[in-house]
Amino acid sequence: MVTSELRTDPVTGRTVAIDAGPFKRRDDFELGPVRLEDPPSACPLCEGREADAGQEILAWREGGPANVPGWSIRVVPDKQPMLRIEGGAGVEVEGLFESRDGLGAHEVVIETPIHEQPLQSLDVDRIWRVLWAWRTRMQDLKRDSRFVSVVVFKNHGKAAGARLDHAHSQLTAYPFVPPALADKLRGAARHLSKSGRCIYCDLIAAELADGRRIISEHGAVLAVAPYASRVPFEVCLTPREHSPRFEDATDTTLEDLARAMKAVMAGIDWALERPAYNVVLHTAPLSGEADSACHWHLEILPRVTRYGGQEWASGVFRNPVAPEEAALALRARL
Amino acid sequence: MVTSELRTDPVTGRTVAIDAGPFKRRDDFELGPVRLEDPPSACPLCEGREADAGQEILAWREGGPANVPGWSIRVVPDKQPMLRIEGGAGVEVEGLFESRDGLGAHEVVIETPIHEQPLQSLDVDRIWRVLWAWRTRMQDLKRDSRFVSVVVFKNHGKAAGARLDHAHSQLTAYPFVPPALADKLRGAARHLSKSGRCIYCDLIAAELADGRRIISEHGAVLAVAPYASRVPFEVCLTPREHSPRFEDATDTTLEDLARAMKAVMAGIDWALERPAYNVVLHTAPLSGEADSACHWHLEILPRVTRYGGQEWASGVFRNPVAPEEAALALRARL
Repeated sequence: MVTSELRTDPVTGRTVAIDAGPFKRRDDFELGPVRLEDPPSACPLCEGREADAGQEILAWREGGPANVPGWSIRVVPDKQPMLRIEGGAGVEVEGLFESRDGLGAHEVVIETPIHEQPLQSLDVDRIWRVLWAWRTRMQDLKRDSRFVSVVVFKNHGKAAGARLDHAHSQLTAYPFVPPALADKLRGAARHLSKSGRCIYCDLIAAELADGRRIISEHGAVLAVAPYASRVPFEVCLTPREHSPRFEDATDTTLEDLARAMKAVMAGIDWALERPAYNVVLHTAPLSGEADSACHWHLEILPRVTRYGGQEWASGVFRNPVAPEEAALALRARL
Repeated sequence: MVTSELRTDPVTGRTVAIDAGPFKRRDDFELGPVRLEDPPSACPLCEGREADAGQEILAWREGGPANVPGWSIRVVPDKQPMLRIEGGAGVEVEGLFESRDGLGAHEVVIETPIHEQPLQSLDVDRIWRVLWAWRTRMQDLKRDSRFVSVVVFKNHGKAAGARLDHAHSQLTAYPFVPPALADKLRGAARHLSKSGRCIYCDLIAAELADGRRIISEHGAVLAVAPYASRVPFEVCLTPREHSPRFEDATDTTLEDLARAMKAVMAGIDWALERPAYNVVLHTAPLSGEADSACHWHLEILPRVTRYGGQEWASGVFRNPVAPEEAALALRARL
């Protein structure tokens, strides 16, 4: 009989239900390996179809002009943006109903010119360039004072919401702090005012002391299976030292992060048979106002379970793999 | 070019991004009709395999003994419960880490003895019996003073998280108010203390005055496309008069609800080609403490879009169909 434990996320205070027991009940998952389905001939992100993807905002090139082949990373505006530079910042209120323009930025980072290369298959220095692109774009978006916060995310595989197979990530810049980040900042601010310390720094110390959920240490970067993991093999990668903003990360830290990502993603591909996954990067708001409380971190969220009625109804994610078991499996593989 | 509008949910304060424009961009969806995949011979919920489903807690029968064929509705304990009657109510705290036993109840409502009948294909009086089962179980669970809150939900189709094809819904009783309901109660309490009124009552009045998002009125029950709908063709069904608790709903109100569900689900099946969907029932905590602020309502959430990186990273759902367009399409069909 399965028994489950309700755990509270130390930062947000949200509840997850973790099923106890060893990692073996694979019939709880949908282990459908990600397969390439889009024909390369129709892919707008492939090398040679630069005009289809759009005018480049940033690229990594060995010289040569923009918007032609010869790049290894390319950043373009999203073709169906959720947020756009045009529009007002005002909030329209009509009784109980409040709305505003989708003001912001929505960019696509094309992670490789080659159709068949998922992020985790790239060499560490190529993964580093993806992180470099995120950092560079953040530094630039920060100059627009209308933007309050940037989040980065990635969808790999249809089950994770990807529309295109070709490896890419997305940046969105918001004129406010979006709710998922605001939930974390609220919890972190509460801890700061109570203890005077960054909750992420305290969690890192607690995890290192405990050890059961530590997956790896690559230089400055620690990989942990979060205590209140929402999905099987959720992994959080974060610098050990207090570091509020990703855009301030050094080249060396990004190299450690790239190495950690490569190793952890290989472990996940092995354990869950090349699953669909999401990646999320959370970093302090651009203003720097939450710098004492916030600490950037990258989440890897394999998608082998479904967001279903339980999640809608109660807001409680049910995770069939304890993070301690996931960390054990990943450590054994590294 | 798509433009999107950010709308704030009037109750929870969460943001959604609604793409403007008429309902036509069907390539934004995954229109995969739900198909039966489980072989009926292996289905534990079918008539004749009562022992496989478990000892019945409640059933609708025309006489005869329990746990044998002859039922039209059957309620059994979940075989892999997230919450269970056994366990302590205490919270274990170890530094930053808080956990507790998965204390509660987790029950399955088998909605029909016949394998191939989705809920929406049942006659109104059969749908009524499903609602009767929910209400009866709530009235009973309420007698256990350890339970603070009950939520009901339903997963139809694999894309909505269903593990079994055979039509069923689930009830979970919690020893606390689960986060998704707590978010609503918090917003409703804020409105109550500001205005002295129930926010749902005020929203109903505002929607009726506006009219663009009204789908139908079946007696006591109103169907609305919520202003901040998270998914295409999200529908909220709620009694027009202030009604905090579902377990107090009259037979007549449940009949109106059953008629409304049947009509709305037929419309959704037509518009989205028999999609997977979730159903969520939110009702005031069992104690009655939030009775002036809360108002029960049933949400139908078609699953033709994915929970992806954008949702994890920002907490903002992106909905490619404006609720005004969904209401227009559903009204035209009713």
